[in-house]
Amino acid sequence: MKLFTYFRSSSAYRVRIALNLKGIVPEEQYTHLTRDGGQQHSAEYRRMNPQELVPTLIDGEHTLTQSLAIIEYLDETHPEPPLLPPDAAGRARVRSLALAIACDIHPIDNLRVLRYLVRVLKVDEEAKNTWYRYWIELGLGALEMRLASERETGRFCHGDAPTLADCCLVPQMFNARRFAVDMAPYPTLQRIEAECNALPAFDDAAPERQADAES
Amino acid sequence: MKLFTYFRSSSAYRVRIALNLKGIVPEEQYTHLTRDGGQQHSAEYRRMNPQELVPTLIDGEHTLTQSLAIIEYLDETHPEPPLLPPDAAGRARVRSLALAIACDIHPIDNLRVLRYLVRVLKVDEEAKNTWYRYWIELGLGALEMRLASERETGRFCHGDAPTLADCCLVPQMFNARRFAVDMAPYPTLQRIEAECNALPAFDDAAPERQADAES
Repeated sequence: MKLFTYFRSSSAYRVRIALNLKGIVPEEQYTHLTRDGGQQHSAEYRRMNPQELVPTLIDGEHTLTQSLAIIEYLDETHPEPPLLPPDAAGRARVRSLALAIACDIHPIDNLRVLRYLVRVLKVDEEAKNTWYRYWIELGLGALEMRLASERETGRFCHGDAPTLADCCLVPQMFNARRFAVDMAPYPTLQRIEAECNALPAFDDAAPERQADAES
Repeated sequence: MKLFTYFRSSSAYRVRIALNLKGIVPEEQYTHLTRDGGQQHSAEYRRMNPQELVPTLIDGEHTLTQSLAIIEYLDETHPEPPLLPPDAAGRARVRSLALAIACDIHPIDNLRVLRYLVRVLKVDEEAKNTWYRYWIELGLGALEMRLASERETGRFCHGDAPTLADCCLVPQMFNARRFAVDMAPYPTLQRIEAECNALPAFDDAAPERQADAES
Protein backbone atom coordinates (compact mmCIF):
# COMPACT_ATOMS: atom_id res chain seq x y z
CA MET A 1 0.00 0.00 0.00
CA LYS A 2 1.03 3.58 -0.57
CA LEU A 3 -0.22 6.44 1.61
CA PHE A 4 -0.19 10.04 0.49
CA THR A 5 0.17 11.82 3.81
CA TYR A 6 1.12 15.09 5.48
CA PHE A 7 2.35 15.03 9.05
CA ARG A 8 -0.08 17.67 10.32
CA SER A 9 -3.20 16.56 8.42
CA SER A 10 -5.54 15.13 10.99
CA SER A 11 -7.33 13.06 8.33
CA ALA A 12 -4.00 11.44 7.41
CA TYR A 13 -3.26 11.03 11.13
CA ARG A 14 -6.48 9.00 11.53
CA VAL A 15 -5.44 6.66 8.73
CA ARG A 16 -1.89 6.33 10.09
CA ILE A 17 -3.34 5.19 13.43
CA ALA A 18 -5.59 2.64 11.72
CA LEU A 19 -2.74 1.28 9.60
CA ASN A 20 -0.59 0.93 12.73
CA LEU A 21 -3.38 -0.83 14.62
CA LYS A 22 -3.69 -3.27 11.70
CA GLY A 23 0.07 -3.76 11.55
CA ILE A 24 0.28 -2.48 7.97
CA VAL A 25 3.39 -0.53 6.97
CA PRO A 26 2.63 1.44 3.80
CA GLU A 27 5.05 3.20 1.54
CA GLU A 28 4.64 6.89 2.33
CA GLN A 29 4.53 9.78 -0.10
CA TYR A 30 4.65 13.18 1.52
CA THR A 31 2.20 15.72 0.18
CA HIS A 32 3.06 19.13 1.60
CA LEU A 33 -0.12 21.15 2.02
CA THR A 34 1.51 24.60 1.85
CA ARG A 35 4.71 24.09 -0.19
CA ASP A 36 4.58 24.71 -4.00
CA GLY A 37 1.19 26.35 -3.54
CA GLY A 38 -0.04 23.11 -1.94
CA GLN A 39 1.16 19.83 -3.45
CA GLN A 40 -2.38 18.45 -3.08
CA HIS A 41 -3.38 20.85 -5.87
CA SER A 42 -0.93 19.41 -8.42
CA ALA A 43 -2.42 17.93 -11.59
CA GLU A 44 -0.91 14.57 -10.72
CA TYR A 45 -2.43 14.46 -7.22
CA ARG A 46 -5.75 15.76 -8.47
CA ARG A 47 -6.09 12.85 -10.89
CA MET A 48 -6.07 10.49 -7.90
CA ASN A 49 -8.01 12.73 -5.58
CA PRO A 50 -10.23 15.30 -7.34
CA GLN A 51 -11.09 16.84 -3.97
CA GLU A 52 -7.40 17.80 -3.64
CA LEU A 53 -7.40 16.68 -0.03
CA VAL A 54 -5.05 14.43 1.95
CA PRO A 55 -4.93 11.44 2.50
CA THR A 56 -5.12 9.09 -0.46
CA LEU A 57 -4.35 5.38 -0.08
CA ILE A 58 -3.36 3.19 -3.00
CA ASP A 59 -3.99 -0.53 -2.52
CA GLY A 60 -3.12 -2.41 -5.69
CA GLU A 61 -5.54 -1.23 -8.36
CA HIS A 62 -7.68 0.70 -5.88
CA THR A 63 -7.33 4.41 -5.19
CA LEU A 64 -9.04 5.25 -1.92
CA THR A 65 -9.98 8.67 -0.56
CA GLN A 66 -11.79 10.03 2.50
CA SER A 67 -10.22 8.90 5.77
CA LEU A 68 -13.32 7.23 7.23
CA ALA A 69 -13.97 5.29 4.03
CA ILE A 70 -10.30 4.23 4.01
CA ILE A 71 -10.45 3.02 7.61
CA GLU A 72 -13.66 1.06 6.99
CA TYR A 73 -11.93 -0.49 3.94
CA LEU A 74 -8.90 -1.44 6.02
CA ASP A 75 -11.21 -2.94 8.62
CA GLU A 76 -13.02 -5.02 5.99
CA THR A 77 -9.87 -6.20 4.22
CA HIS A 78 -7.76 -6.69 7.38
CA PRO A 79 -10.30 -7.67 10.04
CA GLU A 80 -7.90 -8.06 12.98
CA PRO A 81 -7.97 -6.27 15.33
CA PRO A 82 -11.49 -5.00 14.55
CA LEU A 83 -12.01 -1.22 14.57
CA LEU A 84 -15.79 -1.54 14.76
CA PRO A 85 -17.83 -3.53 17.29
CA PRO A 86 -19.69 -6.66 16.15
CA ASP A 87 -23.24 -5.42 16.82
CA ALA A 88 -25.15 -3.00 14.58
CA ALA A 89 -26.02 -0.63 17.45
CA GLY A 90 -22.41 -0.54 18.62
CA ARG A 91 -21.20 0.09 15.08
CA ALA A 92 -23.70 2.93 14.75
CA ARG A 93 -22.45 4.41 18.02
CA VAL A 94 -18.80 4.26 16.98
CA ARG A 95 -19.57 5.70 13.55
CA SER A 96 -21.66 8.50 15.06
CA LEU A 97 -18.79 9.48 17.38
CA ALA A 98 -16.35 9.42 14.46
CA LEU A 99 -18.70 11.43 12.23
CA ALA A 100 -19.35 14.00 14.97
CA ILE A 101 -15.65 14.81 14.60
CA ALA A 102 -15.11 14.13 10.91
CA CYS A 103 -18.20 16.04 9.74
CA ASP A 104 -18.99 18.55 12.43
CA ILE A 105 -15.64 19.73 13.78
CA HIS A 106 -12.76 19.08 11.43
CA PRO A 107 -14.00 20.36 8.03
CA ILE A 108 -15.13 23.70 9.46
CA ASP A 109 -11.60 24.27 10.77
CA ASN A 110 -9.79 22.89 7.74
CA LEU A 111 -6.97 24.83 6.06
CA ARG A 112 -9.06 25.84 3.05
CA VAL A 113 -11.85 27.22 5.23
CA LEU A 114 -9.42 29.21 7.38
CA ARG A 115 -7.89 30.59 4.19
CA TYR A 116 -11.30 31.68 2.93
CA LEU A 117 -11.90 33.49 6.23
CA VAL A 118 -8.60 35.35 5.92
CA ARG A 119 -8.35 35.94 2.18
CA VAL A 120 -11.97 36.53 1.19
CA LEU A 121 -13.70 37.67 4.38
CA LYS A 122 -10.59 39.55 5.62
CA VAL A 123 -10.91 38.07 9.09
CA ASP A 124 -7.96 38.91 11.37
CA GLU A 125 -5.75 36.37 13.13
CA GLU A 126 -7.54 36.65 16.45
CA ALA A 127 -11.00 36.18 14.94
CA LYS A 128 -9.71 33.24 12.90
CA ASN A 129 -8.36 31.55 16.03
CA THR A 130 -11.61 32.26 17.88
CA TRP A 131 -13.49 30.55 15.04
CA TYR A 132 -11.13 27.58 15.20
CA ARG A 133 -11.59 27.12 18.92
CA TYR A 134 -15.34 27.76 18.81
CA TRP A 135 -16.07 24.73 16.59
CA ILE A 136 -13.69 22.50 18.50
CA GLU A 137 -15.19 23.47 21.83
CA LEU A 138 -18.75 23.02 20.59
CA GLY A 139 -17.91 19.61 19.16
CA LEU A 140 -15.77 18.33 22.03
CA GLY A 141 -18.40 19.51 24.52
CA ALA A 142 -21.04 17.29 22.89
CA LEU A 143 -18.59 14.38 22.72
CA GLU A 144 -17.67 14.78 26.40
CA MET A 145 -21.36 14.70 27.30
CA ARG A 146 -21.86 11.47 25.38
CA LEU A 147 -18.69 9.69 26.42
CA ALA A 148 -19.06 10.64 30.09
CA SER A 149 -22.66 9.41 30.29
CA GLU A 150 -23.08 6.47 27.90
CA ARG A 151 -22.56 3.04 29.39
CA GLU A 152 -20.76 1.74 26.28
CA THR A 153 -17.76 3.98 27.00
CA GLY A 154 -14.88 1.97 28.42
CA ARG A 155 -11.14 2.46 28.52
CA PHE A 156 -11.61 3.76 24.98
CA CYS A 157 -14.52 5.49 23.25
CA HIS A 158 -16.38 2.19 22.91
CA GLY A 159 -15.42 -0.59 25.26
CA ASP A 160 -11.87 -1.57 26.09
CA ALA A 161 -10.23 -1.65 22.66
CA PRO A 162 -9.58 1.16 20.19
CA THR A 163 -12.08 1.76 17.39
CA LEU A 164 -12.67 4.11 14.49
CA ALA A 165 -13.92 6.66 17.04
CA ASP A 166 -10.54 6.74 18.81
CA CYS A 167 -8.78 7.09 15.44
CA CYS A 168 -10.73 10.33 15.01
CA LEU A 169 -10.65 11.57 18.60
CA VAL A 170 -6.88 11.62 19.09
CA PRO A 171 -6.04 13.79 16.04
CA GLN A 172 -8.83 16.21 16.97
CA MET A 173 -7.47 16.49 20.52
CA PHE A 174 -4.03 17.15 19.01
CA ASN A 175 -5.47 20.04 17.00
CA ALA A 176 -7.26 21.41 20.05
CA ARG A 177 -4.02 21.46 22.04
CA ARG A 178 -2.12 23.00 19.15
CA PHE A 179 -4.53 25.93 19.15
CA ALA A 180 -4.45 26.24 22.94
CA VAL A 181 -8.05 25.17 23.58
CA ASP A 182 -8.73 24.89 27.33
CA MET A 183 -9.00 21.12 27.83
CA ALA A 184 -10.33 21.23 31.40
CA PRO A 185 -13.98 20.74 30.35
CA TYR A 186 -13.14 17.38 28.72
CA PRO A 187 -11.88 15.02 31.42
CA THR A 188 -13.31 11.92 29.76
CA LEU A 189 -11.84 12.80 26.38
CA GLN A 190 -8.48 13.48 28.02
CA ARG A 191 -8.58 10.15 29.83
CA ILE A 192 -9.33 8.26 26.59
CA GLU A 193 -6.70 10.27 24.70
CA ALA A 194 -4.10 9.22 27.28
CA GLU A 195 -5.16 5.56 27.01
CA CYS A 196 -4.77 5.78 23.24
CA ASN A 197 -1.43 7.55 23.25
CA ALA A 198 -0.01 4.94 25.60
CA LEU A 199 -0.30 2.51 22.66
CA PRO A 200 2.53 2.54 20.09
CA ALA A 201 -0.03 2.48 17.24
CA PHE A 202 -1.24 5.93 18.28
CA ASP A 203 2.07 7.34 19.45
CA ASP A 204 3.89 6.36 16.25
CA ALA A 205 1.19 8.07 14.17
CA ALA A 206 1.62 11.45 15.88
CA PRO A 207 2.56 14.38 13.65
CA GLU A 208 5.91 14.98 15.38
CA ARG A 209 6.93 11.34 14.78
CA GLN A 210 6.56 11.55 11.01
CA ALA A 211 9.48 11.70 8.58
CA ASP A 212 8.04 14.88 7.03
CA ALA A 213 7.50 16.64 10.38
CA GLU A 214 8.49 20.28 10.73
CA SER A 215 8.63 22.30 13.91
CA MET B 1 -38.94 3.54 14.72
CA LYS B 2 -39.27 7.21 15.44
CA LEU B 3 -37.48 9.88 13.36
CA PHE B 4 -36.83 13.38 14.63
CA THR B 5 -36.81 15.32 11.38
CA TYR B 6 -37.09 18.77 9.83
CA PHE B 7 -38.31 19.09 6.27
CA ARG B 8 -35.40 21.25 5.10
CA SER B 9 -32.56 19.48 6.93
CA SER B 10 -30.52 17.72 4.30
CA SER B 11 -29.19 15.24 6.88
CA ALA B 12 -32.78 14.28 7.74
CA TYR B 13 -33.58 14.15 4.01
CA ARG B 14 -30.79 11.56 3.52
CA VAL B 15 -32.30 9.36 6.23
CA ARG B 16 -35.83 9.79 4.87
CA ILE B 17 -34.61 8.51 1.49
CA ALA B 18 -32.91 5.51 3.09
CA LEU B 19 -35.99 4.66 5.17
CA ASN B 20 -38.15 4.86 2.04
CA LEU B 21 -35.75 2.66 0.07
CA LYS B 22 -35.93 0.10 2.89
CA GLY B 23 -39.72 0.34 3.04
CA ILE B 24 -39.68 1.49 6.66
CA VAL B 25 -42.36 3.97 7.76
CA PRO B 26 -41.24 5.61 10.99
CA GLU B 27 -43.27 7.73 13.34
CA GLU B 28 -42.15 11.30 12.68
CA GLN B 29 -41.49 14.00 15.22
CA TYR B 30 -40.94 17.44 13.73
CA THR B 31 -38.07 19.38 15.17
CA HIS B 32 -38.22 22.94 13.89
CA LEU B 33 -34.70 24.33 13.54
CA THR B 34 -35.62 28.00 13.86
CA ARG B 35 -38.87 28.06 15.89
CA ASP B 36 -38.65 28.50 19.70
CA GLY B 37 -35.01 29.47 19.30
CA GLY B 38 -34.43 26.11 17.59
CA GLN B 39 -36.25 23.07 18.95
CA GLN B 40 -33.04 21.04 18.52
CA HIS B 41 -31.61 23.09 21.40
CA SER B 42 -34.31 22.06 23.90
CA ALA B 43 -33.14 20.20 27.00
CA GLU B 44 -35.28 17.22 26.00
CA TYR B 45 -33.78 16.94 22.50
CA ARG B 46 -30.28 17.53 23.77
CA ARG B 47 -30.52 14.52 26.09
CA MET B 48 -30.99 12.33 23.01
CA ASN B 49 -28.63 14.24 20.76
CA PRO B 50 -25.97 16.26 22.61
CA GLN B 51 -24.81 17.74 19.30
CA GLU B 52 -28.25 19.40 19.04
CA LEU B 53 -28.46 18.45 15.37
CA VAL B 54 -31.19 16.78 13.31
CA PRO B 55 -31.87 13.91 12.66
CA THR B 56 -32.16 11.45 15.52
CA LEU B 57 -33.64 7.98 14.99
CA ILE B 58 -35.04 5.90 17.83
CA ASP B 59 -35.15 2.15 17.22
CA GLY B 60 -36.39 0.35 20.33
CA GLU B 61 -33.79 0.93 23.03
CA HIS B 62 -31.29 2.50 20.60
CA THR B 63 -30.92 6.24 20.06
CA LEU B 64 -29.07 6.86 16.80
CA THR B 65 -27.48 10.08 15.57
CA GLN B 66 -25.44 11.19 12.56
CA SER B 67 -27.19 10.51 9.25
CA LEU B 68 -24.46 8.32 7.72
CA ALA B 69 -24.22 6.17 10.85
CA ILE B 70 -28.01 5.84 10.84
CA ILE B 71 -28.10 4.77 7.18
CA GLU B 72 -25.33 2.19 7.72
CA TYR B 73 -27.34 0.89 10.71
CA LEU B 74 -30.50 0.63 8.61
CA ASP B 75 -28.51 -1.18 5.94
CA GLU B 76 -27.15 -3.68 8.48
CA THR B 77 -30.46 -4.29 10.22
CA HIS B 78 -32.64 -4.23 7.05
CA PRO B 79 -30.31 -5.59 4.34
CA GLU B 80 -32.75 -5.39 1.40
CA PRO B 81 -32.31 -3.54 -0.87
CA PRO B 82 -28.61 -3.02 -0.05
CA LEU B 83 -27.38 0.58 0.06
CA LEU B 84 -23.71 -0.45 -0.16
CA PRO B 85 -22.09 -2.70 -2.75
CA PRO B 86 -20.90 -6.19 -1.76
CA ASP B 87 -17.15 -5.63 -2.38
CA ALA B 88 -14.82 -3.72 -0.07
CA ALA B 89 -13.49 -1.45 -2.83
CA GLY B 90 -17.01 -0.62 -3.99
CA ARG B 91 -18.08 0.09 -0.43
CA ALA B 92 -15.09 2.38 0.00
CA ARG B 93 -16.01 4.21 -3.20
CA VAL B 94 -19.63 4.73 -2.16
CA ARG B 95 -18.61 5.85 1.32
CA SER B 96 -16.01 8.24 -0.08
CA LEU B 97 -18.62 9.85 -2.35
CA ALA B 98 -21.04 10.16 0.57
CA LEU B 99 -18.35 11.58 2.87
CA ALA B 100 -17.21 14.07 0.23
CA ILE B 101 -20.67 15.58 0.65
CA ALA B 102 -21.35 14.87 4.32
CA CYS B 103 -17.94 16.10 5.54
CA ASP B 104 -16.68 18.51 2.94
CA ILE B 105 -19.73 20.37 1.66
CA HIS B 106 -22.69 20.22 3.99
CA PRO B 107 -21.23 21.08 7.44
CA ILE B 108 -19.47 24.19 6.13
CA ASP B 109 -22.82 25.49 4.87
CA ASN B 110 -24.88 24.37 7.85
CA LEU B 111 -27.27 26.75 9.61
CA ARG B 112 -25.03 27.20 12.66
CA VAL B 113 -22.00 28.12 10.52
CA LEU B 114 -24.00 30.63 8.47
CA ARG B 115 -25.25 32.14 11.72
CA TYR B 116 -21.69 32.50 13.00
CA LEU B 117 -20.74 34.29 9.79
CA VAL B 118 -23.62 36.74 10.19
CA ARG B 119 -23.77 37.21 13.94
CA VAL B 120 -20.10 37.04 14.94
CA LEU B 121 -18.18 37.96 11.79
CA LYS B 122 -20.86 40.46 10.64
CA VAL B 123 -20.81 39.08 7.11
CA ASP B 124 -23.55 40.56 4.89
CA GLU B 125 -26.22 38.58 3.04
CA GLU B 126 -24.37 38.64 -0.28
CA ALA B 127 -21.06 37.45 1.19
CA LYS B 128 -22.91 34.73 3.11
CA ASN B 129 -24.56 33.47 -0.07
CA THR B 130 -21.22 33.61 -1.91
CA TRP B 131 -19.71 31.45 0.85
CA TYR B 132 -22.61 29.01 0.59
CA ARG B 133 -22.24 28.61 -3.16
CA TYR B 134 -18.43 28.50 -3.04
CA TRP B 135 -18.31 25.32 -0.94
CA ILE B 136 -21.08 23.66 -2.93
CA GLU B 137 -19.39 24.45 -6.24
CA LEU B 138 -16.00 23.26 -5.02
CA GLY B 139 -17.49 20.03 -3.74
CA LEU B 140 -19.83 19.30 -6.63
CA GLY B 141 -17.00 20.04 -9.10
CA ALA B 142 -14.86 17.29 -7.56
CA LEU B 143 -17.83 14.91 -7.50
CA GLU B 144 -18.64 15.61 -11.15
CA MET B 145 -15.04 14.87 -12.07
CA ARG B 146 -15.18 11.52 -10.29
CA LEU B 147 -18.63 10.44 -11.39
CA ALA B 148 -18.07 11.43 -15.02
CA SER B 149 -14.78 9.53 -15.27
CA GLU B 150 -14.95 6.48 -13.00
CA ARG B 151 -16.11 3.28 -14.62
CA GLU B 152 -18.14 2.24 -11.55
CA THR B 153 -20.65 5.04 -12.17
CA GLY B 154 -23.86 3.70 -13.63
CA ARG B 155 -27.44 4.90 -13.71
CA PHE B 156 -26.75 5.94 -10.13
CA CYS B 157 -23.54 7.01 -8.36
CA HIS B 158 -22.38 3.41 -8.15
CA GLY B 159 -23.86 0.94 -10.60
CA ASP B 160 -27.53 0.71 -11.44
CA ALA B 161 -29.16 0.81 -8.01
CA PRO B 162 -29.26 3.62 -5.44
CA THR B 163 -26.70 3.60 -2.64
CA LEU B 164 -25.68 5.68 0.35
CA ALA B 165 -23.95 8.02 -2.10
CA ASP B 166 -27.23 8.83 -3.85
CA CYS B 167 -28.91 9.38 -0.47
CA CYS B 168 -26.36 12.17 0.09
CA LEU B 169 -26.18 13.55 -3.44
CA VAL B 170 -29.87 14.34 -3.93
CA PRO B 171 -30.28 16.52 -0.78
CA GLN B 172 -27.07 18.38 -1.63
CA MET B 173 -28.33 19.06 -5.15
CA PHE B 174 -31.58 20.31 -3.63
CA ASN B 175 -29.62 22.78 -1.49
CA ALA B 176 -27.59 23.89 -4.50
CA ARG B 177 -30.76 24.66 -6.46
CA ARG B 178 -32.32 26.43 -3.50
CA PHE B 179 -29.38 28.83 -3.39
CA ALA B 180 -29.38 29.31 -7.18
CA VAL B 181 -26.08 27.57 -7.88
CA ASP B 182 -25.44 27.31 -11.64
CA MET B 183 -25.91 23.59 -12.29
CA ALA B 184 -24.57 23.57 -15.87
CA PRO B 185 -21.08 22.34 -14.85
CA TYR B 186 -22.56 19.15 -13.33
CA PRO B 187 -24.27 17.18 -16.14
CA THR B 188 -23.46 13.80 -14.60
CA LEU B 189 -24.75 14.83 -11.19
CA GLN B 190 -27.92 16.21 -12.79
CA ARG B 191 -28.45 12.99 -14.71
CA ILE B 192 -28.10 10.89 -11.55
CA GLU B 193 -30.30 13.28 -9.58
CA ALA B 194 -33.04 12.86 -12.19
CA GLU B 195 -32.71 9.06 -12.06
CA CYS B 196 -33.08 9.21 -8.29
CA ASN B 197 -35.99 11.59 -8.22
CA ALA B 198 -37.89 9.39 -10.65
CA LEU B 199 -38.09 6.85 -7.81
CA PRO B 200 -40.87 7.33 -5.24
CA ALA B 201 -38.38 6.65 -2.40
CA PHE B 202 -36.51 9.84 -3.30
CA ASP B 203 -39.48 11.90 -4.41
CA ASP B 204 -41.48 11.18 -1.25
CA ALA B 205 -38.49 12.25 0.89
CA ALA B 206 -38.24 15.71 -0.69
CA PRO B 207 -38.62 18.69 1.65
CA GLU B 208 -41.77 19.99 -0.03
CA ARG B 209 -43.49 16.61 0.43
CA GLN B 210 -43.09 16.59 4.22
CA ALA B 211 -45.93 17.21 6.65
CA ASP B 212 -43.90 19.99 8.32
CA ALA B 213 -43.02 21.74 5.04
CA GLU B 214 -43.28 25.50 4.84
CA SER B 215 -43.03 27.65 1.75
